[in-house]
Amino acid sequence: MPTKQSRPTGRHFLQIPGPTPLPERIASAMSRQMLDHRGPTFAEFGLRLLASVKSIFKTAHPVIIFPSSGTGAWEAGFVNTLSPGDRILVIETGQFSVLWRNMAERLGLKPEVLPTDWHRGGDANALEARLKKDKAHDIKAVCVVHNETSTGARTWVDEMRKAMDAAHHPALLMVDAVSSLAAMDYRHDEWGVDVAVSGSQKGLMLPPGLSFNAVSPKALAASKKAKLPRSYWSWDDMLAINAAGTFPYTPAQSLLFGLAEAIDMLLEEGLDNVFARHERLAEAVRRAVRAWGLDIWCRDPKGYSPAVTAVAVPEPHNADAFRKLVLDNFDMSLGTGLNKLAGKAFRIGHLGYTSELTVCGALCGVEMGLELAGIPHQQGGVAAAMAYLAETARPAKAKAA
Amino acid sequence: MPTKQSRPTGRHFLQIPGPTPLPERIASAMSRQMLDHRGPTFAEFGLRLLASVKSIFKTAHPVIIFPSSGTGAWEAGFVNTLSPGDRILVIETGQFSVLWRNMAERLGLKPEVLPTDWHRGGDANALEARLKKDKAHDIKAVCVVHNETSTGARTWVDEMRKAMDAAHHPALLMVDAVSSLAAMDYRHDEWGVDVAVSGSQKGLMLPPGLSFNAVSPKALAASKKAKLPRSYWSWDDMLAINAAGTFPYTPAQSLLFGLAEAIDMLLEEGLDNVFARHERLAEAVRRAVRAWGLDIWCRDPKGYSPAVTAVAVPEPHNADAFRKLVLDNFDMSLGTGLNKLAGKAFRIGHLGYTSELTVCGALCGVEMGLELAGIPHQQGGVAAAMAYLAETARPAKAKAA
Amino acid sequence: MPTKQSRPTGRHFLQIPGPTPLPERIASAMSRQMLDHRGPTFAEFGLRLLASVKSIFKTAHPVIIFPSSGTGAWEAGFVNTLSPGDRILVIETGQFSVLWRNMAERLGLKPEVLPTDWHRGGDANALEARLKKDKAHDIKAVCVVHNETSTGARTWVDEMRKAMDAAHHPALLMVDAVSSLAAMDYRHDEWGVDVAVSGSQKGLMLPPGLSFNAVSPKALAASKKAKLPRSYWSWDDMLAINAAGTFPYTPAQSLLFGLAEAIDMLLEEGLDNVFARHERLAEAVRRAVRAWGLDIWCRDPKGYSPAVTAVAVPEPHNADAFRKLVLDNFDMSLGTGLNKLAGKAFRIGHLGYTSELTVCGALCGVEMGLELAGIPHQQGGVAAAMAYLAETARPAKAKAA
Amino acid sequence: MPTKQSRPTGRHFLQIPGPTPLPERIASAMSRQMLDHRGPTFAEFGLRLLASVKSIFKTAHPVIIFPSSGTGAWEAGFVNTLSPGDRILVIETGQFSVLWRNMAERLGLKPEVLPTDWHRGGDANALEARLKKDKAHDIKAVCVVHNETSTGARTWVDEMRKAMDAAHHPALLMVDAVSSLAAMDYRHDEWGVDVAVSGSQKGLMLPPGLSFNAVSPKALAASKKAKLPRSYWSWDDMLAINAAGTFPYTPAQSLLFGLAEAIDMLLEEGLDNVFARHERLAEAVRRAVRAWGLDIWCRDPKGYSPAVTAVAVPEPHNADAFRKLVLDNFDMSLGTGLNKLAGKAFRIGHLGYTSELTVCGALCGVEMGLELAGIPHQQGGVAAAMAYLAETARPAKAKAA
Repeated sequence: MPTKQSRPTGRHFLQIPGPTPLPERIASAMSRQMLDHRGPTFAEFGLRLLASVKSIFKTAHPVIIFPSSGTGAWEAGFVNTLSPGDRILVIETGQFSVLWRNMAERLGLKPEVLPTDWHRGGDANALEARLKKDKAHDIKAVCVVHNETSTGARTWVDEMRKAMDAAHHPALLMVDAVSSLAAMDYRHDEWGVDVAVSGSQKGLMLPPGLSFNAVSPKALAASKKAKLPRSYWSWDDMLAINAAGTFPYTPAQSLLFGLAEAIDMLLEEGLDNVFARHERLAEAVRRAVRAWGLDIWCRDPKGYSPAVTAVAVPEPHNADAFRKLVLDNFDMSLGTGLNKLAGKAFRIGHLGYTSELTVCGALCGVEMGLELAGIPHQQGGVAAAMAYLAETARPAKAKAA
Repeated sequence: MPTKQSRPTGRHFLQIPGPTPLPERIASAMSRQMLDHRGPTFAEFGLRLLASVKSIFKTAHPVIIFPSSGTGAWEAGFVNTLSPGDRILVIETGQFSVLWRNMAERLGLKPEVLPTDWHRGGDANALEARLKKDKAHDIKAVCVVHNETSTGARTWVDEMRKAMDAAHHPALLMVDAVSSLAAMDYRHDEWGVDVAVSGSQKGLMLPPGLSFNAVSPKALAASKKAKLPRSYWSWDDMLAINAAGTFPYTPAQSLLFGLAEAIDMLLEEGLDNVFARHERLAEAVRRAVRAWGLDIWCRDPKGYSPAVTAVAVPEPHNADAFRKLVLDNFDMSLGTGLNKLAGKAFRIGHLGYTSELTVCGALCGVEMGLELAGIPHQQGGVAAAMAYLAETARPAKAKAA
Repeated sequence: MPTKQSRPTGRHFLQIPGPTPLPERIASAMSRQMLDHRGPTFAEFGLRLLASVKSIFKTAHPVIIFPSSGTGAWEAGFVNTLSPGDRILVIETGQFSVLWRNMAERLGLKPEVLPTDWHRGGDANALEARLKKDKAHDIKAVCVVHNETSTGARTWVDEMRKAMDAAHHPALLMVDAVSSLAAMDYRHDEWGVDVAVSGSQKGLMLPPGLSFNAVSPKALAASKKAKLPRSYWSWDDMLAINAAGTFPYTPAQSLLFGLAEAIDMLLEEGLDNVFARHERLAEAVRRAVRAWGLDIWCRDPKGYSPAVTAVAVPEPHNADAFRKLVLDNFDMSLGTGLNKLAGKAFRIGHLGYTSELTVCGALCGVEMGLELAGIPHQQGGVAAAMAYLAETARPAKAKAA
Repeated sequence: MPTKQSRPTGRHFLQIPGPTPLPERIASAMSRQMLDHRGPTFAEFGLRLLASVKSIFKTAHPVIIFPSSGTGAWEAGFVNTLSPGDRILVIETGQFSVLWRNMAERLGLKPEVLPTDWHRGGDANALEARLKKDKAHDIKAVCVVHNETSTGARTWVDEMRKAMDAAHHPALLMVDAVSSLAAMDYRHDEWGVDVAVSGSQKGLMLPPGLSFNAVSPKALAASKKAKLPRSYWSWDDMLAINAAGTFPYTPAQSLLFGLAEAIDMLLEEGLDNVFARHERLAEAVRRAVRAWGLDIWCRDPKGYSPAVTAVAVPEPHNADAFRKLVLDNFDMSLGTGLNKLAGKAFRIGHLGYTSELTVCGALCGVEMGLELAGIPHQQGGVAAAMAYLAETARPAKAKAA
């Protein structure tokens, strides 16, 4: 049934901001035979995995792994800590904050939105001002998307925490780290995040199917009083049985095997090297975009995402027609524009298992696509990216002798 | 990080009632590269998959696929069709009906239990009697576990439907087909099931991580009025976007690729052949158990499961000590006794990707284990199984010339 | 033991002229379980494979598959058709013709060389002249390397055949098609080749480990009289048992499974499309080289190879220092200069499982490497390649609307 | 093209004496991407591999790895050490010694045979007697098949060495260790073997496609004077370039990656444990055969093979008809009878990646097959095997509590 025959020759360039390309090492790890999920070999594996995953979140507190999409971990964060009718504040930075807000509403919460113009990350001053007004502390949680995948804008979570502290506000800080985890620095404990939400198919380089909640003691305390109905997502069952290395229901073993391998890969490279690699590739992409004379959708350099860059397509050109042309001609998938960006922007994913030459190849595909599509632009985007990458190459000229 | 070094040489015998052994074809299919889940190749794949999965449930109505464990599809069934405080009736045939009942309670439903002695399937007469008393039709759903994995007892769903019809009761019929689907006959439409719940790691031969709801028009109608909060599990979002072959949130691609291959394998073998194979292997196992002089936990032959057989261990022997001995000596995992069966029974899984000789090898492991453990038994269990399998072999003596 | 930890993040760019990148489909096919190589399932598979492989050589005559490197098929060609002391004529176009010649000598043949300057393919006129002098027909075989992997020069085999015919010379025509097969047009029967030699790790996209002899009736006839000792390489044993779909000694099953998949992939794409893809990517590479102001090693445009391009590095720069720099900085392997090209040239492989964007990425790596190495060059190589690829893109501007 | 659809459900029982079942770990290792075989990562890998493979042969001298079937390493052993017309002495224990002898003849050597009745290993006394007669030392090599795969008989190589020493004969000792290596003890240096020949698809658990020569200093010295023509098989080229971790022609990378993993697996288990496992499983098989009242083909208990057991089928029954019946009914491949055993015996392979329960399952298949085929036998073979395996189980009854 797989659509083998329709695939062109050569590796597909998958330049969307997740799922990201699957490394062979992870694919191999995922093809292990099934284990008895209640037996000793699995339990031993589970204990080590649950311990090691904490290092990725930089937390000493529990990380809960669900067999679900990242969206499920949003739901888990809400239903474990909140009660029907609770007010929450969502910093709206793009489509994923909108979806998160919508979920809150469907679950019976009362979300309020702190808007941006979708061209930047969240504003800490605005957050502080809003929280100061909430003298009654009606707001039970503040929801921040660390890396807004739809716009390519980062919100600085440490600043959000400072704003909450400055307002002396006790709300829980919930952070969507779906497309930031393992692509840009995330420090759960240091930043005082209460609930982190993440997924497997981005910086972790896995297929989709696992989601995560990193949970602070304060969030755990909140879960004792939270009244939203919950069962599948219950932290208490998970934590109780995770202590033995197992799970309350059958875990998604193949993805867990892959996760263990992914963590090994990340720690072998070193998290700081992982982040630096993402920053460097992202800067190369932005230099290409600027050289083409196109606009980076994110207008605030402070908010530039190391994981994904959204690029505005000048009217009257349609970004999705452009994406189709690139796919048809050069076998590359670019990210579509979502919501306010629909038809107006495409997104270049540059996260996960990627490197200089893959990003260069992708930029070549965009530059050729712009030419074929007749979209007004300057040539030289790839050249600008190459100049930057060569200039910042590590082993340096000395080595070439 | 995987625990390679602790694994003995040779293929592990995984004789638990799920996860079941992973066929190479499925492992290969699962190692395909990721696709753009919003692109045309994926959409084409998704459309075909969503159509073909219906054949496995024998339904013309939608089958919804969640990235979650089977437990998640229980939750999805409830939250899409019921409202807080709704009464439901759970036929308690073993541990999985208990867990289902418990979930209902946690979600704010009012479950009532129709008990059995855990040694048989559900009783259609008892159901009919109970429903006839419910003149006000307070009971909104009847929950039946098709194959009770914890006891190895089958409930005949068609009889349950007849009982409901005889009582002229409008409750929804919800069926847990987690360990029955693709191992024993399941006919969603013919039996008038409203919500089927299933998972990937049993008869479908996949790793855990996908769950299913097959949904009748009546269940869909109920979902329009149901008031339990829901978002991740919402059928409406799923169905709307499934029409285009895609999913409301990132689907678990690798498992979906595997599912497509699994369906191909099942249809190549033919569903009726699949069921006959399971029945035959199960009968061989039961003949062995009887020859050993041990008790099959399921005391009603009508309820014998084609997928799993629970075997009682005579006192004062402990079934888990026996299982450990078998694992240590013969590298075979048997299913543990759950709840009332804890320490008293072990379970032999004989479903999924299995065959005569694998089941024979497994029975040899049990027979040798009984000997080593000093559990009183007759020899000859394997011999009895062999006699039956030889007698029922297909190509028959004629062929041997 | 594998050297996992030393591998950088992201896909390695393997731009050597073989082994070429392994497609997932082939890797998956190769991970099938072993079969009884004397059983019916294997025999059926073997028959189909031995039939289908002929289509790749465009021959109606036998193709023999050895478990060996391509080098083994050179030896097989000699020992099956020649006798100690036989004279052969080798067209020396580069390092691989030298190695072939050396092998002839070690096996007790008397090779004579028809030289070129290593900057072009073989010269049909020179061949005709030489053969005309050989009135006694002492020369028993003419050896031609179709695609000289070391220099990136093609010899036109049809012209060689015409030269032999014009000289009315009865020598066998032996062609090394190792790096040409499935990358550029090869027509065994039409061109009157007697023995073709090929290997698995180039255009066939497989790992190394299989080699091939396509054999004309004239070559078969010669094998009846040939006196060089032979056993492993004997065609007669092979052909006798191949008739039943099996092999005289245990075949390299996993590679044969991969070969079947490779043939499927090539035929799905269409051989003519495969060749056109290689020609187009090669031209893009050459335009880049010219734009950089560097010399293509092959000085005769007629001889440009669709599979590999050797690029001269101006003195005093060393091509291997450059290759090391590119590997260290950009995780790309380029082909080393062999023999006369050592230190003076590097080679860019652009054959097998590859595409526009991979070649673009590779050219970016070269362009950045030239910059880092301080090798005098013009910028704009990648830009020239992109211009050509965009100009020759198939679906054309119209589609972009 | 692979024959997926014709494969029955469940794991095939591949009980031939090679190829043996492919462990997942090895399959995964083999699916790594290709490396530049002339680059630093490969060289580092090659150096470690060439060092570690020596431990499997128990030698401090070179082990040469060819991309070829095991048959190729026979040829390599001859052509590197002998000259046209040299006399050699082959101990004929079965079909593989016959084939080896035939090869010698085809290569221009003069083989003499020291026969057995094909029901036992080689006779050291007969060897000593023969060598003592060879006062002129015309015999240049003695060829011994360590484990005669066709009959299931072991020749004790240490005794052969003693016989040669007792005769003060300088002939080279060549040993075919194809189906013995990594299944039964082999000590290259201690036993004074000059040339060992082996292959990948037996105890090494790899697919076919690699062969080996372990080479003593005396053999290396002989190679300096040997006059048989050679090129592909030349040790000198190999050894020269192996010193750098690389190979004279493109190595079969995927198999080498698998070999590294296989060596890791063998050393993790411990070679002595590997041998003990094979001995124990072999004894279980023989007890089954005796209980059935059938004859073990090998009539000398000292020669019983730990790797394979040939079983005589009483007339007028045909062993191949029996094998077909077992394959058709129980999806198990048994080894066919070769040469003198054709139709008269079948072979049960019990080497490589195997375990108690797999062997039990295989014996069940044989016992049921005997029943279906109507071959006169006693029941109870499997029972006898189980009794032995239970009795010799390691953790022992104490553990069962």
